[in-house]
Amino acid sequence: MPAAAQALLRTLVDAGVDVCFSNPGTSEMHFVAALDAEPRMRAVLTLFEGVATGAADGYARMSGRAAATLLHLGCGLGNGLANLHNARKAGVPVLNIVGDHASSHAELDTPLQSDIETVARNVSGWLRRSLSSEQLCGDALEAIAAAHAAPAKVATLIVPADVSWSEGAAPRRGVAAPPTPVVDDEAVQAAAQALGAGPRAALLLGGRALRAPLLQLAAELAARTGARLLGEVFPARMQRGAGLPVVERLAYLPELASVQLAELEQLVLLDARVPVSFFAYPGKSAGLLAPGCRVHALATPREDLHDALRRLAGHPRLPPRRGPPPLQVAARPPRPRGGLNARKVCQALGHLLPEQAIVVDEAQTSGVMLPAFTAGAPAHDLLALTGGAIGQGLPLALGAAVACPGRPVIALVGDGAAMYTPQALWTMAREGLHVVAVVLNNRAYAILELELQRVGAAGGGARAREQFDLARPSLDFVRLAEGMGVSARRADTAQGFVEALEHALAHPGPHLIEALVPRAYSGLKLRLLPRLLSTLDRLPQPMARAIQRGVAP
Amino acid sequence: MPAAAQALLRTLVDAGVDVCFSNPGTSEMHFVAALDAEPRMRAVLTLFEGVATGAADGYARMSGRAAATLLHLGCGLGNGLANLHNARKAGVPVLNIVGDHASSHAELDTPLQSDIETVARNVSGWLRRSLSSEQLCGDALEAIAAAHAAPAKVATLIVPADVSWSEGAAPRRGVAAPPTPVVDDEAVQAAAQALGAGPRAALLLGGRALRAPLLQLAAELAARTGARLLGEVFPARMQRGAGLPVVERLAYLPELASVQLAELEQLVLLDARVPVSFFAYPGKSAGLLAPGCRVHALATPREDLHDALRRLAGHPRLPPRRGPPPLQVAARPPRPRGGLNARKVCQALGHLLPEQAIVVDEAQTSGVMLPAFTAGAPAHDLLALTGGAIGQGLPLALGAAVACPGRPVIALVGDGAAMYTPQALWTMAREGLHVVAVVLNNRAYAILELELQRVGAAGGGARAREQFDLARPSLDFVRLAEGMGVSARRADTAQGFVEALEHALAHPGPHLIEALVPRAYSGLKLRLLPRLLSTLDRLPQPMARAIQRGVAP
Repeated sequence: MPAAAQALLRTLVDAGVDVCFSNPGTSEMHFVAALDAEPRMRAVLTLFEGVATGAADGYARMSGRAAATLLHLGCGLGNGLANLHNARKAGVPVLNIVGDHASSHAELDTPLQSDIETVARNVSGWLRRSLSSEQLCGDALEAIAAAHAAPAKVATLIVPADVSWSEGAAPRRGVAAPPTPVVDDEAVQAAAQALGAGPRAALLLGGRALRAPLLQLAAELAARTGARLLGEVFPARMQRGAGLPVVERLAYLPELASVQLAELEQLVLLDARVPVSFFAYPGKSAGLLAPGCRVHALATPREDLHDALRRLAGHPRLPPRRGPPPLQVAARPPRPRGGLNARKVCQALGHLLPEQAIVVDEAQTSGVMLPAFTAGAPAHDLLALTGGAIGQGLPLALGAAVACPGRPVIALVGDGAAMYTPQALWTMAREGLHVVAVVLNNRAYAILELELQRVGAAGGGARAREQFDLARPSLDFVRLAEGMGVSARRADTAQGFVEALEHALAHPGPHLIEALVPRAYSGLKLRLLPRLLSTLDRLPQPMARAIQRGVAP
Repeated sequence: MPAAAQALLRTLVDAGVDVCFSNPGTSEMHFVAALDAEPRMRAVLTLFEGVATGAADGYARMSGRAAATLLHLGCGLGNGLANLHNARKAGVPVLNIVGDHASSHAELDTPLQSDIETVARNVSGWLRRSLSSEQLCGDALEAIAAAHAAPAKVATLIVPADVSWSEGAAPRRGVAAPPTPVVDDEAVQAAAQALGAGPRAALLLGGRALRAPLLQLAAELAARTGARLLGEVFPARMQRGAGLPVVERLAYLPELASVQLAELEQLVLLDARVPVSFFAYPGKSAGLLAPGCRVHALATPREDLHDALRRLAGHPRLPPRRGPPPLQVAARPPRPRGGLNARKVCQALGHLLPEQAIVVDEAQTSGVMLPAFTAGAPAHDLLALTGGAIGQGLPLALGAAVACPGRPVIALVGDGAAMYTPQALWTMAREGLHVVAVVLNNRAYAILELELQRVGAAGGGARAREQFDLARPSLDFVRLAEGMGVSARRADTAQGFVEALEHALAHPGPHLIEALVPRAYSGLKLRLLPRLLSTLDRLPQPMARAIQRGVAP
């Protein structure tokens, strides 16, 4: 009789979990050995666990389904925690399979022994240790059901080595998804009433509400009522571009978000949270809403969003349907010229973005202009840094590419961010994925220079600034990429960047483009930042026209 | 009045914590800003938290003192967990300073919010959240005292941003180290009796007992009684080489360790644990001792090791002192010639190892011959993978080099291991450290090929083996190193490797040598492994002579 690990693999695949991002060790060898008996399972090897977990997040954002991760004990899980944190905040399903020592081995406190449950707790909405090979497949089915049930979550199944290697497990089928509760009538009523405030009301979309079909339903509601349509700062996955509803995304900087929210009297949340500032700053309130603004949660991630929107749309209080909502017009910025900077990198992306691209944004300060320049590009998906744990961009792109083989993936990553999980490049090469990694190399943790000023820390002199300086030595991302089997080019002119991007988009397989750019904000520019940013993603026509004319917004 | 972070820095430095391995974020900006006011604190920037924590481990192993780490919230700490696990198992002092959101911000559940205490719990022997700026410096002193008190441990101090930025903190001085308890007379008596069994007794040294002055005291005791002198498998820091006592290190593979331990009737532990197998294997016992072997813990890490050894040495039951114990004779293997393999890399190290080198071993299968070939080299320190969490070698070397500026550090790292924390290379370049990173590139997770066979997993075919294959694409460590500012060479002949090593040792600053080697064990060789390994580190004269003759042991 085969080892239980074989039955586990079949159970996973039968339940739709047929991709596994792995970094195994000795305790997972029976799972690995079982791969030959279950060719439907695609095992994608990674060189670091944070790549595996970030890839599972990206895969889930694009497919709606959980991938498995295969991790080695508490330390392997530990390496994956940061990107599991991002996945948790993204509200996507992920299934961690974490091997452990054989049950009898734990008490010996051998070198790799750790308390896996404790390591897993923070990020896992569902957590269980499988106690026997007979229970293993049932446990896996429960984990999958939990991962996908609203709200989608990270489920962690700890599998001791002896449970994997023992016999006596039969594959099981059938994931029983519990019904998703519907919101009560009061929530619908309150939302309908709130939207009556017209332009002084807004519908704030988050999570799944930023994509079809909920996005279109919400946009129709906004058009009917005159309410504004807002989107959360860091969406897990947002569908945008030409032909799609225009959503005004909230700004990261609280000063700017406050401006966006200043005139609101009513805010209706759909799979979104009350807007607050990302970090706390001395002497500033974390709240962003105007005093007196009333907040109504139409539906939370635990509830049936579609049903809630449908019932709200049918509410008698709302004005009648008046045709389709305003949609983003197609508008690409012109080809940038001259010296290269972060703005022109974003402009080039807007100029060339292919149909159905998947755009991953982890470019921090250098990516500020991305939303504006790509607003009128062909319809695409934007995946953002949901949990703020840096090192997500490259793994996320990897997972998205595995989920969507036909679609080009473009990852915009800062130099600092790229160095947390550069190993993702190797797996992209191994799997032959069409990912274009654009590393905006400004040789600094520029976001921290900005934050140092913002927190008002006194005394930040030369020694403090050394902590943001990535120029000594300078990182050479072309060599790093080539060292992992990914073809790469460096660009320090706008034309060079555009050509590199054209080449990368035209040739399947992974590419890295290192864009040498000055820091986006320093000195004078920093003081202008609020004005620069205040127009961001408020994109209807003036902005699109400005971009078309090649004028900086 | 300055922010509390300034008082914290002064308190740390006054207490001897004057190195900080950092990867800060917004919540740590006041700590960063305070660096200019406290120039005695050396802040060593890393690009990934696992590098910071591994470096703190290496620093502590060589200096005996805690370095601080500066980590950003739960996610930054998560990235550092694996190497904190290794530090915990090494029993060294480490002080984590983990920034958190301002206290009032936590309840808002913003994107980066996580339960830091839970993330920290596994690895932290001491854990506290500082609740006010008035308490901050006292908390830090307690953390430092706890980290250094026997048994040395990882202490984690969580510092909310508002505690850092508030005023009202005064620096504090004076770490009150609690007295270390001494062992009771029964433990000494039992050990003295056990050692009476002569060659059927052994003294097993671990932790601090593998270095001066305990090592010499233990060796004298073994010489007086005829007992064997054993060392644990993965020492945190072991002093060895010409002129030092000869210690027989236990083998990693349980079959071999069982042979080493087969004839023992009495085992006396000094800062060591009962030997058990690293992993569990189906149908095999994890225990390694012969049935009936009696175990006596002379002293644990919680107790005064020096006092215990001194009292044991004065025990009337023991035979009188008979002069110095046998010491390792100087003996270097000859210069290797011909094609390159892992054995010749180790031979070249033995041939060239400089005086007072620090050798970090994370080479798994490729490093098996390292102990034998370096046994008679000039006195050096060997740092091993204490907790089994891969990705330690390069960070450990970085930290050791910061602790010991005058000593060359040589890190022997497998290709798989090197890819968990390659970012350490950048910090080595930034700090101008004399580290020679030797990456043994066999293009495989070769240890897992071995383990797959050993766990007896059936069905491991082509798809399973793909999970160990790092050849598709092959990693180019020369480019990776150059991408991070480290000069690098590739060697595929023994002569080329020797020349690269000579060059690297002669030129200060970091170097990487990529040694292209075949897998150490496969097919026929794998079956011979037990015989090959059974002589390992049993090094007295026959082995040293064999090495001198250039004969493979």
